[in-house]
Amino acid sequence: MTIQSTTNPIKISPQEKAHRYFLAASHCNAQKELSLSLFAQQLIDVAVQHANSLNIGYARLKSIGALWVLSRITVAMHRMPHIEENYTIVTWIESFQRMFSHRNFVIYADNGEQLGFARTLWVAIDEQTRRPADLSGLISDEDILSERDCPIPVPAKLRDFKEAPDMEHYRFQATDIDFNRHVNSTRYIELILNQWSLEFHDRYKIVYFDINYRNEAHFGERVTICLQRDESSAKIKIEGESHCVCMSEIRFAERGI
Amino acid sequence: MTIQSTTNPIKISPQEKAHRYFLAASHCNAQKELSLSLFAQQLIDVAVQHANSLNIGYARLKSIGALWVLSRITVAMHRMPHIEENYTIVTWIESFQRMFSHRNFVIYADNGEQLGFARTLWVAIDEQTRRPADLSGLISDEDILSERDCPIPVPAKLRDFKEAPDMEHYRFQATDIDFNRHVNSTRYIELILNQWSLEFHDRYKIVYFDINYRNEAHFGERVTICLQRDESSAKIKIEGESHCVCMSEIRFAERGI
Repeated sequence: MTIQSTTNPIKISPQEKAHRYFLAASHCNAQKELSLSLFAQQLIDVAVQHANSLNIGYARLKSIGALWVLSRITVAMHRMPHIEENYTIVTWIESFQRMFSHRNFVIYADNGEQLGFARTLWVAIDEQTRRPADLSGLISDEDILSERDCPIPVPAKLRDFKEAPDMEHYRFQATDIDFNRHVNSTRYIELILNQWSLEFHDRYKIVYFDINYRNEAHFGERVTICLQRDESSAKIKIEGESHCVCMSEIRFAERGI
Repeated sequence: MTIQSTTNPIKISPQEKAHRYFLAASHCNAQKELSLSLFAQQLIDVAVQHANSLNIGYARLKSIGALWVLSRITVAMHRMPHIEENYTIVTWIESFQRMFSHRNFVIYADNGEQLGFARTLWVAIDEQTRRPADLSGLISDEDILSERDCPIPVPAKLRDFKEAPDMEHYRFQATDIDFNRHVNSTRYIELILNQWSLEFHDRYKIVYFDINYRNEAHFGERVTICLQRDESSAKIKIEGESHCVCMSEIRFAERGI
């Protein structure tokens, strides 16, 4: 199977799923690029489509009283797609254990250039107890794993930190909440990106981003966004009223002229 | 031309453009419905596609030094599409004057049920002077107008008001800014919806929404969201540092059990 492309066809295996996107002007960020939060949304969309097509999606898990929770996203980018560019996101499952699914992504320009990669970790939890669910026997590995390489090293768990010279507060509002009644996964990414000015984002692009989702935040909850930053990177913690909500790391690189 | 539908085909004329959507769970709001801000984004997307296909889109206007600015959105809904529902947005141009385009929309469920309607007003402005641009001769009316009716009465201009018992402040951040370097049109809608609690949105649905975009807001600008509200409706003004940014009116109705 190949995806339509102007010059260099993008090959995907039967174990993989691809979706070709067009970045309309009205979907761009201020830098006329795909924003990191919309990119994360699209990773989730492609993952859901692939899981559904393998019959290991939400519907199948619901039938055994379980659901998928996104636990981690790690992104490494050469560049983001730019305004009115077509690009293709390909996803595959690297490994599938009793309670986890390691799902990776590569993003292609239409000329076959690899724009970047992403790793995600999904955890199956029991709908009632919210404890990890056991998916043993749901599917056999051979059916679904792809041998494609993901060049992003598996990141270590992000460690908590105490001292944060920069702190900001935010209280979650109605439009921040998703169908699960928790704060939308992509909204945390926006909160993080908003710790830098527009001028900074004009000058620097994101080359690496890692987020560990720890505990769900809810409507009305007040969080503290804690930063340890230097010129071109930062460690971020979003602290809720009683729990750490997420930990993140971001690295920037100066854009070319 | 007909759009794929399970029971009742949705007929559109050659002067119209349709786009069929699927509302994935991860795109829903907390009420498991299409949010008003995503709906507004989709109206803009379908409008842009239609204008491009008629060769009166951004590219054509840019060639004469002009651009389209969205001046107003008016929405009247029976109900919003719900989680995992397919729906179709049809757009047509009601009238096209020297500097304005009145573009309407109807939204269909797959069974042919009309879920609601929208009116939009687009103004062509000169890229340099930011004054209205003259599009006379760009296209002849007969080619592009549809005779479909839009049952929403043309709303009167929303009037400014002075007394606002409810006021809240917000400062625009990096992810609020679009490719034009102004605040994204849909972001104002979120600011407005966030003047009500999650519990209120659970109990009430939006049946009418009107927004007049007056002046563009920018990164770092601090706005005041002023409300005159009663139990199931409100008039809203978003006031910038030197200008009124937008005026809006919203009406809710209690959801059925």
